[in-house]
Amino acid sequence: MDNTKKILRELKADAMLTGAADLRAWLTGFHSTFGFVYTDAQESVFFTDPRYAEGAKEALRNSYTGVAIAKNETTVFDYIKSKKIKRLAVPVERLTQPEYERLRRKFKLVDSMPAFVSAMSVKTEEELSCISRACEIAEEAFSQLLGFLKEGVTENETAGYLEYLMRKCGAQDRSFETIVAFGKNSSVPHHASDDTKLKSGMPVLLDFGCKVNGYCSDITRTLWFGGKPDEEFLAVYNDVLASHLLARDQIRAGMKGKEADAVARSYLAGRGLDKFFTHSLGHGIGINIHEYPSLGPNGEGVLQDGMAFSIEPGVYFEGKFGIRIEDSVTLKDGRVVSFMKSDKNLTVL
Amino acid sequence: MDNTKKILRELKADAMLTGAADLRAWLTGFHSTFGFVYTDAQESVFFTDPRYAEGAKEALRNSYTGVAIAKNETTVFDYIKSKKIKRLAVPVERLTQPEYERLRRKFKLVDSMPAFVSAMSVKTEEELSCISRACEIAEEAFSQLLGFLKEGVTENETAGYLEYLMRKCGAQDRSFETIVAFGKNSSVPHHASDDTKLKSGMPVLLDFGCKVNGYCSDITRTLWFGGKPDEEFLAVYNDVLASHLLARDQIRAGMKGKEADAVARSYLAGRGLDKFFTHSLGHGIGINIHEYPSLGPNGEGVLQDGMAFSIEPGVYFEGKFGIRIEDSVTLKDGRVVSFMKSDKNLTVL
Repeated sequence: MDNTKKILRELKADAMLTGAADLRAWLTGFHSTFGFVYTDAQESVFFTDPRYAEGAKEALRNSYTGVAIAKNETTVFDYIKSKKIKRLAVPVERLTQPEYERLRRKFKLVDSMPAFVSAMSVKTEEELSCISRACEIAEEAFSQLLGFLKEGVTENETAGYLEYLMRKCGAQDRSFETIVAFGKNSSVPHHASDDTKLKSGMPVLLDFGCKVNGYCSDITRTLWFGGKPDEEFLAVYNDVLASHLLARDQIRAGMKGKEADAVARSYLAGRGLDKFFTHSLGHGIGINIHEYPSLGPNGEGVLQDGMAFSIEPGVYFEGKFGIRIEDSVTLKDGRVVSFMKSDKNLTVL
Repeated sequence: MDNTKKILRELKADAMLTGAADLRAWLTGFHSTFGFVYTDAQESVFFTDPRYAEGAKEALRNSYTGVAIAKNETTVFDYIKSKKIKRLAVPVERLTQPEYERLRRKFKLVDSMPAFVSAMSVKTEEELSCISRACEIAEEAFSQLLGFLKEGVTENETAGYLEYLMRKCGAQDRSFETIVAFGKNSSVPHHASDDTKLKSGMPVLLDFGCKVNGYCSDITRTLWFGGKPDEEFLAVYNDVLASHLLARDQIRAGMKGKEADAVARSYLAGRGLDKFFTHSLGHGIGINIHEYPSLGPNGEGVLQDGMAFSIEPGVYFEGKFGIRIEDSVTLKDGRVVSFMKSDKNLTVL
């Protein structure tokens, strides 16, 4: 109830209707693949299909006026029509054009999306503890994975095994498709894991995360497999790590996303590496793996206490190797606190 | 090129633009997370970002006029404006309302979605062989999973391990979130795997699949774990299996989806079980796990040779148990040919 009323108060609307899975999960704390939340000044009703009815009634008994059954949007639209409201708020970016058209023919629409983006970016203690637990599980699974990395394993089976370990350690699921990149594949920031085999004398880049109660973690580690690390690799690794630690130390609440990004980018520029840092420093994390705010060169959003985001500087030499070091962090008392506990110095297997 | 021209010919448009990942993958055979395909009478151009440029050039060198770099839609829109075309076809259902509006301000729009749905539903030999391989891998992984099912394992780690096995056996990834349901959880058709532990004397329902070259498999098996199966369970299992086999034998090219559905539904009605068969008999399978046509009570689409779809009758007794038996199949010379080789008689572990 708190979240729905909070959003409604910010909007010049009599009521709001939310069908998108991520926004619905945030409003209710209840995860489902189909449903609508309807809220006006008097009530909040959760419409869902029979599969979820029992679970929803139990989960929402203290906060929602009612849980109603709806097999499709028509039931919901008819209910709203009966309320004779004037202006209905909907998250425009989350509607396909035909969905929007069906609503527009029946109601005067107002966009609720900006209010959601802003409200979802600052996390409650409960939300932060889910993200923290998702980070803890990801790190535990990673430490268990190290023994699995032997010559001859493929990127793809490594990705599958890491996802299995995260679930074994208590995660609900992965938070996105795990990236495992061996050797020169690490120079592609979003490499799709394939049947490349691990050999001695290779960098290994792993970008992964999991979900706890619907909230995501996001972590990247780059390590060296077999023998003594290449000297150029080691030097660049230490530069990327230094830029990461500098960002963690210097980012403050009140900075814009682009100012946070500039901390790491300027450091890498001083090392002649900025032209190889081809993506943003970070992004918000929550129910979605990519949320507001962006910590990139164009990020105008202001960082605030309670936000959760990634810090992930990366440097990529095409056809040679790439290095990315990523933690999920939050801001507390104006400063960065990492959710991650593991050592970020280079691991050599 | 063939696919793009095929779609364009069916549309009353001068050109078409396709940004949705699934349609783009089908048009090009090249998988990417960002890109646009532009086609007119003279040329087909694939716009993508620098990450995919090299791979796309290599993959599309024989079929596309060009591969161009675009970091966002503006570059693409400017290119199309320069061509002075009158009517542009776009897949309306795949556009958010803001995306549609940005296009509508610049072009006269025609909907390409119906042409895609129809053309994608009948598979080429190459597409069928990808689906067939994805089915083979899923069955191999399932046979390897049986040794993992011991008292005390959770649904969630079982799901993770099965997904790992599919990748180890050569799949690119899962084709959807694996459903593992122990005991009474099997009575929820789309149960979200949780920390329920396996105990002796329980049904186990597994609904899973994987991807090969972007094409999906979909399979469900229900088995009995520990001791002699409950008699009611066994009787219902045999009824569901009989309805599955009957559907496989009697479904023909030329039937509507609803007629195919009725084959299994009537059989289950004769056993007094139709009111527990709460979903459709099946759905098309391809690049997406759910495609046209629907084999459900409202399915008006006509089944044709070369279509690939699921046959998945299921019966659910709330709070007790559920049974679903699913194969992925195709139609050849008018009749159903299953991609699956494994025995569907009840497995007792």
